Amino acid sequence: MNILFIMYDQLRFDYLSCAGHPTLETPNFDRVAARGVRFTNAYVQSPICGASRMSFYTGRYVSSHGAAWNGFPLRVGEMTMGDHLRKTGMECWLIGKTHMRVDAEGMERLGLTPDSVIGARQAECGFDVWVRDDGLWAQGPDGFYDSNRSPYNEFLKSKGYEAENPWATNANASVDEDGDIASGWMFENADKPANIREEDSETPWLTDQAIEFIDQARAPWCAHVSYIKPHWPYIVPAPYHDMFGPADVPAAVRHDVEREDVHPVLGVFQENKIAAAFQREDVRDKVIPAYMGLIRQCDDQLGRLLDHLEASGRMEDTMIVLTSDHGDYLGDHWLGEKDLFHEPSVKVPLIIYDPRPEAEATRGSVCDALVESIDLAATFVDARGADVPDHILEGRSLLPWLHGETPAWRDYVISEYDYSASGQAVKLGLEPKACRLFMIFDGRYKMMHAEGGFRPMLFDLETDPDEFHDLAKGDSHQHEIDRLYGLLAQWGWRVSQRVTRSDAEIKASRGGSLCKGVLPFLVDGSEVPEELTSIYRGPAGVDYTKGRSGDD
Amino acid sequence: MNILFIMYDQLRFDYLSCAGHPTLETPNFDRVAARGVRFTNAYVQSPICGASRMSFYTGRYVSSHGAAWNGFPLRVGEMTMGDHLRKTGMECWLIGKTHMRVDAEGMERLGLTPDSVIGARQAECGFDVWVRDDGLWAQGPDGFYDSNRSPYNEFLKSKGYEAENPWATNANASVDEDGDIASGWMFENADKPANIREEDSETPWLTDQAIEFIDQARAPWCAHVSYIKPHWPYIVPAPYHDMFGPADVPAAVRHDVEREDVHPVLGVFQENKIAAAFQREDVRDKVIPAYMGLIRQCDDQLGRLLDHLEASGRMEDTMIVLTSDHGDYLGDHWLGEKDLFHEPSVKVPLIIYDPRPEAEATRGSVCDALVESIDLAATFVDARGADVPDHILEGRSLLPWLHGETPAWRDYVISEYDYSASGQAVKLGLEPKACRLFMIFDGRYKMMHAEGGFRPMLFDLETDPDEFHDLAKGDSHQHEIDRLYGLLAQWGWRVSQRVTRSDAEIKASRGGSLCKGVLPFLVDGSEVPEELTSIYRGPAGVDYTKGRSGDD
Repeated sequence: MNILFIMYDQLRFDYLSCAGHPTLETPNFDRVAARGVRFTNAYVQSPICGASRMSFYTGRYVSSHGAAWNGFPLRVGEMTMGDHLRKTGMECWLIGKTHMRVDAEGMERLGLTPDSVIGARQAECGFDVWVRDDGLWAQGPDGFYDSNRSPYNEFLKSKGYEAENPWATNANASVDEDGDIASGWMFENADKPANIREEDSETPWLTDQAIEFIDQARAPWCAHVSYIKPHWPYIVPAPYHDMFGPADVPAAVRHDVEREDVHPVLGVFQENKIAAAFQREDVRDKVIPAYMGLIRQCDDQLGRLLDHLEASGRMEDTMIVLTSDHGDYLGDHWLGEKDLFHEPSVKVPLIIYDPRPEAEATRGSVCDALVESIDLAATFVDARGADVPDHILEGRSLLPWLHGETPAWRDYVISEYDYSASGQAVKLGLEPKACRLFMIFDGRYKMMHAEGGFRPMLFDLETDPDEFHDLAKGDSHQHEIDRLYGLLAQWGWRVSQRVTRSDAEIKASRGGSLCKGVLPFLVDGSEVPEELTSIYRGPAGVDYTKGRSGDD
Repeated sequence: MNILFIMYDQLRFDYLSCAGHPTLETPNFDRVAARGVRFTNAYVQSPICGASRMSFYTGRYVSSHGAAWNGFPLRVGEMTMGDHLRKTGMECWLIGKTHMRVDAEGMERLGLTPDSVIGARQAECGFDVWVRDDGLWAQGPDGFYDSNRSPYNEFLKSKGYEAENPWATNANASVDEDGDIASGWMFENADKPANIREEDSETPWLTDQAIEFIDQARAPWCAHVSYIKPHWPYIVPAPYHDMFGPADVPAAVRHDVEREDVHPVLGVFQENKIAAAFQREDVRDKVIPAYMGLIRQCDDQLGRLLDHLEASGRMEDTMIVLTSDHGDYLGDHWLGEKDLFHEPSVKVPLIIYDPRPEAEATRGSVCDALVESIDLAATFVDARGADVPDHILEGRSLLPWLHGETPAWRDYVISEYDYSASGQAVKLGLEPKACRLFMIFDGRYKMMHAEGGFRPMLFDLETDPDEFHDLAKGDSHQHEIDRLYGLLAQWGWRVSQRVTRSDAEIKASRGGSLCKGVLPFLVDGSEVPEELTSIYRGPAGVDYTKGRSGDD
């Protein structure tokens, strides 16, 4: 069985028709959900591209892998999905975005070069690369945001788009009435059509790459097809740009009470520029329809891909995973972007189709188990029939759920956020190590712990599913807070770095040193069978103890 | 300035005359103490050889480096003192024991071979090796405990000791009246002289190697001279074997109350074979004098080394550190060996001589700051005048204390113990991840947290310096326990894996993406200076939005 691991970027869990969106039809996401399981309580381990993806790809919490924000390199030697899957005989390929930043210093220290297979895999987060494109070819006076080469820009140039950066000037910009670039970076342009042939835009292009890969891939393969959309810039080519409009824009899920006695960290985020933009209805009325259009385009392209899998017979022997690296506030909670832990940000869609007979009973069902994105790495290893190395992988296989079982399961999910590189850190005047947030959610209560001496935040999603009422403003819920802090403490003491010795190896080693002569408890040797001390017995030979010089 | 980092194995903090031992004279340890600072509250991060040393050598807590017990490999890529010092231009050499176990799987995964300089350093915990000998050439029916080559055994053979394993039959055994080997593994033989010329025994041999190294070393060098003694087998050559006797053996520091309502983990350790042996006065009466003899020999050899440093001028330009990887219960608390967190086990001697003028004011003084062994790595980097990379090294430089300052300092020390590979784990019926202990000590209260659902242990060293009365047996000290658990939780949430990005790098990166065109908050672009969006402006060129095919 192959594994097709599809990730979208910044796709909210509730912007799918199978998730209940009132007007956005996503028939192809639904198509996979109808044949698989849709997980309704799936949480990423950090609501930001880089750190979230590093957790997906290592199967480890952010505090365990340390690549805590965008651009923080993943340390050399950290094991990835690719390493785990290759051990089982499955190749692991990348088509698209990882947001991986190579640990150049570590590579140099270990003498690894990117032009060796091993070095390349280290540099590419364990993937073999079919195409690597992180999808954000932003460019300013200091140059490109992404210093890698851009296969997508090269493609556009080969298609005749004459510009230095056609991603910026065509795929992510429209044309205004004066014939000038109307960049998708500006929300006022979100409702304009991107100045590009639809089939040349990013999502179709990456889908073409995915199909090309699949057609030549040697089974068993894992392909990580990793789209940039619907991540900003919020602009999409015709016909998607006006498929939706203000009538499709839901009222923002936000309440004045959220800004009263607001938690200081939430407060500075609510004051940032993107929050200010999304607090405007005119911005939401343009951006959200574009966002929806991008998702609809994703859905159409998913349909192409699924059709191809059907036609080629791959649907029979390929597990399909659809997910996202985090969500998008879109103005909910007075915020834009992601970063914090409300549902629109930290919860993600997760749909898994397992083609095998064992998964028959759960087709089309919904599962509300508390899932962490790091469960996917464990699931893939388990799907290969290999033991999940739980001294390295911190998630748990989802196969039991897919196969209709009810396994012993976790009682809470964890997510983390490091905002030390942001303007919010500067505003709060904090040193980097203090700029860290932890979420613990037990299915009902969601607590955010903030380092730096702040009080926590607490929501009761049973009585307040909109997460408006921060119950940590007073002391009415101190009992719950204490309980959750106890669980968070337990999590903090977890074994996460004992990556070179499995539980099984430890158990097998017990007592081993006795038979290798390590016997530091003998009074006269009669305490153990003679064979254990035989090397320590027998004729002494020369006696050196009679004189200092060894003479007899 | 060079750094001579001398470590003894299993040397108790109180078995030195400068530490107040009533009968054991250690004039050379005292000699260094008289010229330096003796730290009276120095604690190792795990009271067991392997894990303690991995913490010393990485400058990181056990939970951070993961090599939690003897034989658990240190993961490939983990930075070591050697890496940090080489960055500053100082070489870092090993003479003796490290207890390092190579991460063979990780080396293979990264294509590193032990015959390359990089691979060798990875395999040897970051050291360049003058001589590597872990000092425990135990041998049983299943072969040698240590699969490396034994330079010491090779030396003995070259000196005419005819045996397959002269370490076992000569250096660590005597001769009985029948001319048979009287092994030092048996405590009944502890008072016999080892069957070896004193100058050929382990401590003089290693001292010879150290002198040889120093005489040819290129400054600036760091030499880790790492002795196996006074670690068992408890046997020493003449004249040391009868230098001390039962009159020198202090009463065991133990009390019946320690065994009442005993903490389950402490209880199973008190029932193990070595504890049983050390609960016998006849064992203590033989072993402790041998232990003292081994230490006296260490002191005499230290004297040789110091004399050589004086004669060669190296005393003027070499920092000297004397310490141990953990202690030895010797029957205190009804225990033998180490493993647990009472003072005789987890506290170690630490004497530092800094030859520079800045250290003049503290010569011969004593410092009671709460020190962790991981402070040494930070101290060495600081001594090189380099910034201590505190996103990797978790200890703090001791230089301020050596130079007479009173720096902001820690409020508690942490130590950890993983007993998953031991018989105690089997007795308690626990899975490996539950076999973990944590100590937190604030200078007065010492708490041990035990995973696996056990209650903690608590001692008040101000009112109960002997650590007899476990205040966690009842609830009289719940307040202190809660307070310490709060601190332990904080420690559990520390940043330990963000090893690829320093605080300084994070601060320097803030705002950087704006000038690289990442502007996800613009409504119309007027929010930022024009130059930031200039690439996104200008003539659009071909307009593809007019028709699906791109025709005008």
